[in-house]
Amino acid sequence: MASYHPNDPTLTSWVPTPPDHPFPLQNLPFGIFAPRPGDPRPGVAIGDHVLDLAELGLLEGDSLNDLMAQGPAAWRDLRAKISWLLNAGNPELRDHPGSALHRSAEVELLLPARIGDYVDFYSSLEHATNVGSMFRDPANPLLPNWRWLPIGYHGKSGTIALSGTPVRRPKGQLTADNQTAVYAPCRRLDIELETGFFLGSHTDIFGLVLLNDWSARDIQRWEYQPLGPFLAKSFLTSISPWVVTLDALEPFRVDGPAQQPEPLPHLQTPEPRNYDLHLEVWLQPASAPRATCLARTNFRHMYWSMSQQLQHLTSNGAPVRPGDLCGSGTISGPTPDSYGSLLELAWNGTRPLTLDTGETRTFLEDGDTVTLRGWCQGAGYRIGLGDVTGQVVPA
Amino acid sequence: MASYHPNDPTLTSWVPTPPDHPFPLQNLPFGIFAPRPGDPRPGVAIGDHVLDLAELGLLEGDSLNDLMAQGPAAWRDLRAKISWLLNAGNPELRDHPGSALHRSAEVELLLPARIGDYVDFYSSLEHATNVGSMFRDPANPLLPNWRWLPIGYHGKSGTIALSGTPVRRPKGQLTADNQTAVYAPCRRLDIELETGFFLGSHTDIFGLVLLNDWSARDIQRWEYQPLGPFLAKSFLTSISPWVVTLDALEPFRVDGPAQQPEPLPHLQTPEPRNYDLHLEVWLQPASAPRATCLARTNFRHMYWSMSQQLQHLTSNGAPVRPGDLCGSGTISGPTPDSYGSLLELAWNGTRPLTLDTGETRTFLEDGDTVTLRGWCQGAGYRIGLGDVTGQVVPA
Repeated sequence: MASYHPNDPTLTSWVPTPPDHPFPLQNLPFGIFAPRPGDPRPGVAIGDHVLDLAELGLLEGDSLNDLMAQGPAAWRDLRAKISWLLNAGNPELRDHPGSALHRSAEVELLLPARIGDYVDFYSSLEHATNVGSMFRDPANPLLPNWRWLPIGYHGKSGTIALSGTPVRRPKGQLTADNQTAVYAPCRRLDIELETGFFLGSHTDIFGLVLLNDWSARDIQRWEYQPLGPFLAKSFLTSISPWVVTLDALEPFRVDGPAQQPEPLPHLQTPEPRNYDLHLEVWLQPASAPRATCLARTNFRHMYWSMSQQLQHLTSNGAPVRPGDLCGSGTISGPTPDSYGSLLELAWNGTRPLTLDTGETRTFLEDGDTVTLRGWCQGAGYRIGLGDVTGQVVPA
Repeated sequence: MASYHPNDPTLTSWVPTPPDHPFPLQNLPFGIFAPRPGDPRPGVAIGDHVLDLAELGLLEGDSLNDLMAQGPAAWRDLRAKISWLLNAGNPELRDHPGSALHRSAEVELLLPARIGDYVDFYSSLEHATNVGSMFRDPANPLLPNWRWLPIGYHGKSGTIALSGTPVRRPKGQLTADNQTAVYAPCRRLDIELETGFFLGSHTDIFGLVLLNDWSARDIQRWEYQPLGPFLAKSFLTSISPWVVTLDALEPFRVDGPAQQPEPLPHLQTPEPRNYDLHLEVWLQPASAPRATCLARTNFRHMYWSMSQQLQHLTSNGAPVRPGDLCGSGTISGPTPDSYGSLLELAWNGTRPLTLDTGETRTFLEDGDTVTLRGWCQGAGYRIGLGDVTGQVVPA
């Protein structure tokens, strides 16, 4: 197996994976699933199936934290083993899969890790510029610190939930005059299109998920000064179930935007520091027969990279734990149809969006389902992150 | 035992507890200790001893999370059982303590809980007014939202550590001109005198510890806009090892300050909502023969109570977990010698403090040891929180 590489685009699996499927042999994302209620175990997604790593004696446990703690050499070794097991030319498992392969539709998916700390960054120049233009000063939208460090804050790890979890509309204090408040259901419920990366150690990133940082803009407006967002974000954060390793994304590395001023030495990383990861936002009202694509953008636009975010996170000397999760911050592109939030897409409610069905939206209404989707496009295959979805239910 | 109440001030224990000891029979704080390395178990502090709850078959585990999840009736029942076991008039354990009682000096203390989420509030009117006066507008120091809700933010749970943990001076980005930055060791290292409460559920508070929210004021100044404190706080948060139950503090309830405007209905709580808890800050330079008391204050000054903080925390519908920890925010009193941070005591570096040894301080220097201390004073006994201490070591 010396010349065998799991990223080889010519590899095929004995498990069928159509060309536009998110989980071909070149992906092999890790997750936690239960083939029966109460029996969680690690698995790898391959096409519409899940490979049972516990059944194969390759990995045990009800979370990926131990694997995340093992480090890049162990991750690569395990991924190569799994790739070879699933390779079309290897009869070992192909001819006798036994109970090692489950149909995805027949298993329950669970959170991939026990998440210790959750940090959310604010690293898209376009997003920060849009928000600063709307709420501060269009002529001078960025604060002076923004280009010097990846701004971030701690969020609530206890309400990070799997794709599919209903989005209960939060309640909170809302203000009309910036002087007084009422306690009522949020009226400006929003999404934030993000990726999230799971940490292995203070230097190593295990892999990526899609992340929807549901946000109550009206609660946020009243509460956020001077200590930042709190209850406007803490009611729910949704993630996709399968963690795509950085190794699988390696062929899709691209240079990031130029950085000016040059980052301080402890925040410098070699190029290519970003990934060519296509991203989409879809919205479907409860009454609509189909979803409308509201935005298409790309992770490559991100100003601060994941490595830079991690270097900043640990720059004060604080340790991190395997399984800590970092959100990228809203990913917006340069054009009005590439923004990663309704706040930006409908420009703070002033430019309502028209859906394919003729309905309009400025923020989310009860019954709306939002799905985020993302993939890297290879020659004849995709490395997909899978979907993260959620339907809004009344307060 | 129908008329037996563990808070009865006349009760005495067969374990000796002098009148000024923090852990008399009326206290019975819970913690996790290891009589031998690698053998963690729940215990209760009584005088200079630890009662071994695992040895007695009363409670198992390496954290108090399960107990915290059981709720107030179970907490009261267990506390009453322990009180009776330690009562001077009960021969059962007194005459045959066996291996159920350990000398505190001979055991290792551990974190009392697996802390899921950590929230830090900002609920002292005096502290918020001082900070607003220094950095915003002395004529108008409070933002409009402050009297409407208990401002708070999420902190890092992974760096909450036990009293005694060395305080490594953090590094970070510092600015002199608010336009550019350098990466260097923090020069304005501070303390924040706080209490912390552990949650049982979304309505029940298990108990209290002392908490030092170590803070890098210069890192905070540059990073905190617009999303709040991040690396300036995340390097270390120290807590005292013994969790004092709200039941033990019950005799010391006092009314809180008047609240104007009247809180919205979901934030209203019956009086007495505060506790008469005396608090002190002590500082000892490495070269000094003794510590100097820098501040004396009282928890009773807090504008927003713990119950109100918890009601706010869950007001958006987000669940909490047993073992989540909430910091009170810096506890400052009305007089300049009752402030809970060096930032306020030395007024942003402009009024250096003189220690008993003649040295001066505006912020912490390497080698300094800070100890926070707190207790409720009963008639002939104290309900103490124990100390939380830490020595600054170089970056």
